[in-house]
Amino acid sequence: MQERAALIGIDWGTTSFRAYRIGAHGSVLETRTAAAGILKVPDGGFEAVLEREAGAWLAAAPALPVLLSGMITSRQGWVEVPYCPCPAGSAELARALRQHATAAGRRLHFVPGLSLIGSDGVPDVIRGEETQVLGELGGGPDAAHGRRVIVLPGTHSKWVFAEDGRIVWFATFMTGELFAVLKDHSILGRLMAGTAPDEAAFARGLAYGRAGPGGLLRRLFSARTLGLFEQLPASAVASYLSGLLIGSEIAEALACLPQAQGAGEITVIGGSELAERYRSAIEAAGCRARAAQPDASARGQLLVARAAGLVP
Amino acid sequence: MQERAALIGIDWGTTSFRAYRIGAHGSVLETRTAAAGILKVPDGGFEAVLEREAGAWLAAAPALPVLLSGMITSRQGWVEVPYCPCPAGSAELARALRQHATAAGRRLHFVPGLSLIGSDGVPDVIRGEETQVLGELGGGPDAAHGRRVIVLPGTHSKWVFAEDGRIVWFATFMTGELFAVLKDHSILGRLMAGTAPDEAAFARGLAYGRAGPGGLLRRLFSARTLGLFEQLPASAVASYLSGLLIGSEIAEALACLPQAQGAGEITVIGGSELAERYRSAIEAAGCRARAAQPDASARGQLLVARAAGLVP
Repeated sequence: MQERAALIGIDWGTTSFRAYRIGAHGSVLETRTAAAGILKVPDGGFEAVLEREAGAWLAAAPALPVLLSGMITSRQGWVEVPYCPCPAGSAELARALRQHATAAGRRLHFVPGLSLIGSDGVPDVIRGEETQVLGELGGGPDAAHGRRVIVLPGTHSKWVFAEDGRIVWFATFMTGELFAVLKDHSILGRLMAGTAPDEAAFARGLAYGRAGPGGLLRRLFSARTLGLFEQLPASAVASYLSGLLIGSEIAEALACLPQAQGAGEITVIGGSELAERYRSAIEAAGCRARAAQPDASARGQLLVARAAGLVP
Repeated sequence: MQERAALIGIDWGTTSFRAYRIGAHGSVLETRTAAAGILKVPDGGFEAVLEREAGAWLAAAPALPVLLSGMITSRQGWVEVPYCPCPAGSAELARALRQHATAAGRRLHFVPGLSLIGSDGVPDVIRGEETQVLGELGGGPDAAHGRRVIVLPGTHSKWVFAEDGRIVWFATFMTGELFAVLKDHSILGRLMAGTAPDEAAFARGLAYGRAGPGGLLRRLFSARTLGLFEQLPASAVASYLSGLLIGSEIAEALACLPQAQGAGEITVIGGSELAERYRSAIEAAGCRARAAQPDASARGQLLVARAAGLVP
């Protein structure tokens, strides 16, 4: 017999929309994705997207709770939810859920992001990643006694440190966005002939970027001079720069983690080629790295919904 | 009686053109500037620009030698001159001058840039700045016995270490270009309301950027989160980011100078507002900073021409 649906979970980010029909034991029964990130939805159009993508599921089971996480809860989203301060686990997120009734009378539950004041006094934020991390930590007894480092690569990469099932620290690195603007708008981009992956160049950039946490403003220029001195073909500049930036990020992150990681294991969330690159880059830096289970968002949403008493 | 002209010096960069009529004792008798950087000159058009800007001077004194420095000697310029390896002073540059006769039969002398293989095995280059630095060092007995640190702020900032009148080390930092691409093309730029200078925000960014040589990928995100937490108005984000990047550059540069600089004096070349910002930023970092004399290029060109026997 098929597992019964217990929850509709929506992971709604800046550029993408993903809806999950989630079973009571945490299986993902069905998934729908759409190119309907919050920046692409016209004013007042969020409900229409939700009905279009998940309306059939809801019509079949109108009592199913709906939980939304990601940038949909930001000021640019549907219902803004203030950040919940760290440390936080599913209990804190459940207490901070914000309810909203749609025009059609449907009750929605929005998950807050997390904020943190770093040891340097500067704030940091995540929104959406907290739910993915909780899903990866899981709700079982294992989660309650471990220290975990979890990386979410992307435009703004997030490194998260969790302890006993709660997120206690995180940091944001603008690696992906920096790569994109340098590729598209800087002299380094003009030196690139294509962006086909070049593993040797990526490894070389990685090693140079990782050589220490500092010196990125200077090291960036190597992507120009190595070409000038015919040590790097134009076809390899993009991979070299990607390695240089990711290597810098890993060095910075390992230096600022609240607990020295040493040869500890790091989990990388995300099924993309980029996540795989991060995994091999972290291993090249001397740590163990493993890929997270897929659909971490859905599992995190179920944990939060359960902590809030929305599902049994 | 007016000092007689001894040399025509052309400082021809990527975006600007500057011609000097230089006296035998080093005075700049006349200057012409034009928005005729090498990227703006059509193929085969360099001679026409030279004749248009300096033709009258040359017609009045056809025997005057003409020396050109800057990106005009690069692959994208008029006559490519291979880089001269470091250490180098005016004698080495004079020996490496490349001559070229124009269609009109005029003899031109092109000054090479300098190259260096860093202690990390990665090459670095300057082209144009070497002549400015030599001009700032001067040719007198003072130059022969000093250690000097000279900074040339810009799209690609250069830090130069000179000893006994010769350039022995330099490094390039992509600070200006990074600021420009982040301002024009990243989320940080979208958070900016104008770029009017805000001194307090600049100082705050400076202090945070300088806190250590590492961590730039992470610290960049503070330009977003401080706004989100209402600690930085949108009108101050540009100044804050500028301070953050310049502070990072100064920390990186002081950490990689071949001789610890401590409270030593640093000279900043350039008459711009940016140079003044660097001067105050360097002082905020605990070093003494002073502005260079103007027209360093012209004085450097005269030193090189003299070393080459082109002027008495």
